[in-house]
Amino acid sequence: MTYQEILTVVSRGRGSHNITAELRAVLARAGIATGLAHLFVRHTSCSLLLTENADPDVRRDLETIFSRLAPDGDPAYRHDLEGDDDMAAHARSVLAGSDLTVPMAGGELLLGTWQGVFLWEHRSRSHRREVVVTILG
Amino acid sequence: MTYQEILTVVSRGRGSHNITAELRAVLARAGIATGLAHLFVRHTSCSLLLTENADPDVRRDLETIFSRLAPDGDPAYRHDLEGDDDMAAHARSVLAGSDLTVPMAGGELLLGTWQGVFLWEHRSRSHRREVVVTILG
Amino acid sequence: MTYQEILTVVSRGRGSHNITAELRAVLARAGIATGLAHLFVRHTSCSLLLTENADPDVRRDLETIFSRLAPDGDPAYRHDLEGDDDMAAHARSVLAGSDLTVPMAGGELLLGTWQGVFLWEHRSRSHRREVVVTILG
Repeated sequence: MTYQEILTVVSRGRGSHNITAELRAVLARAGIATGLAHLFVRHTSCSLLLTENADPDVRRDLETIFSRLAPDGDPAYRHDLEGDDDMAAHARSVLAGSDLTVPMAGGELLLGTWQGVFLWEHRSRSHRREVVVTILG
Repeated sequence: MTYQEILTVVSRGRGSHNITAELRAVLARAGIATGLAHLFVRHTSCSLLLTENADPDVRRDLETIFSRLAPDGDPAYRHDLEGDDDMAAHARSVLAGSDLTVPMAGGELLLGTWQGVFLWEHRSRSHRREVVVTILG
Repeated sequence: MTYQEILTVVSRGRGSHNITAELRAVLARAGIATGLAHLFVRHTSCSLLLTENADPDVRRDLETIFSRLAPDGDPAYRHDLEGDDDMAAHARSVLAGSDLTVPMAGGELLLGTWQGVFLWEHRSRSHRREVVVTILG
């Protein structure tokens, strides 16, 4: 069985937004017990992020680390048409990844206790982001 | 339904090669409407890359950024049998990833307008690369 | 068809542990010929790693590289409740990824000759890790 739905997430600029509850709502509509839930962002400047859901400092520190790995406004970049965060956002998207697959059993995500699913916006400004959720089982 | 095919891509040394058209041709042969298209490279020194398909400077800047994250010929490396690019290529492969899953609907990839799928060669010299495409739906 | 099993891996602190044989044993029990084998760690401080299985120096050098990308005990981190390796482990988990999908044919993994699947422990101390294996085909 295959079920598919597109979620729309309006980001509030750079930062990560917990979408675990929205994902669980899709699962409830899908009615598939055992299988895989695949998420995919249709953009090259945001990511899907699986990380700790408890202490928000984890996601704050991830911003610190990623701002070193792919700094904004680096003079070495050639691609900067949309501003200092343009190329940095593309690089963060490659490092953190555009898709994520989570296993399911009993109609529930098999996430660990401390795992949350986040849309990670890498651009400075707010964007309307599409997340394709495909469930196979 | 499951469909599988192995694509062969001959890389021309370090750099990224757009394989979106080849992937679309596999989809046409598969005849599956809704589901997931999974790509996997059978190598540890190249990657699959999902990034902007318009401005080639994006992929040029990605080379710049990755050459800092995993520099060639670092004296700290112990694994250098095949040259200065050997260990750097393995590290880039881990950072960018060896597999990628793209959702499908109506027999088409649900890529965003600006997304392209690339084989990313991390070795300096040309290589013959195998990409396993598996379609489930 | 869908088959699912949870493997338990006891890590011996930071480092990578080859789990390819355990994964092959799951495949043998699943009895699915063609499809996808998906692995997922239910934790935010370890990863799944696909890399060279021959020279252990590759994985040693990966530790070197990742210790630069996400250093232990960085004074900029705010999340350090569980020690110097706490936040570094979360960041390594995001960079290397928590899930991995490998194609199958003839009931076998379509890994390349030099590819091995590893659980990569990012914490300093030993942990009991759960790896969910889901096979679709």
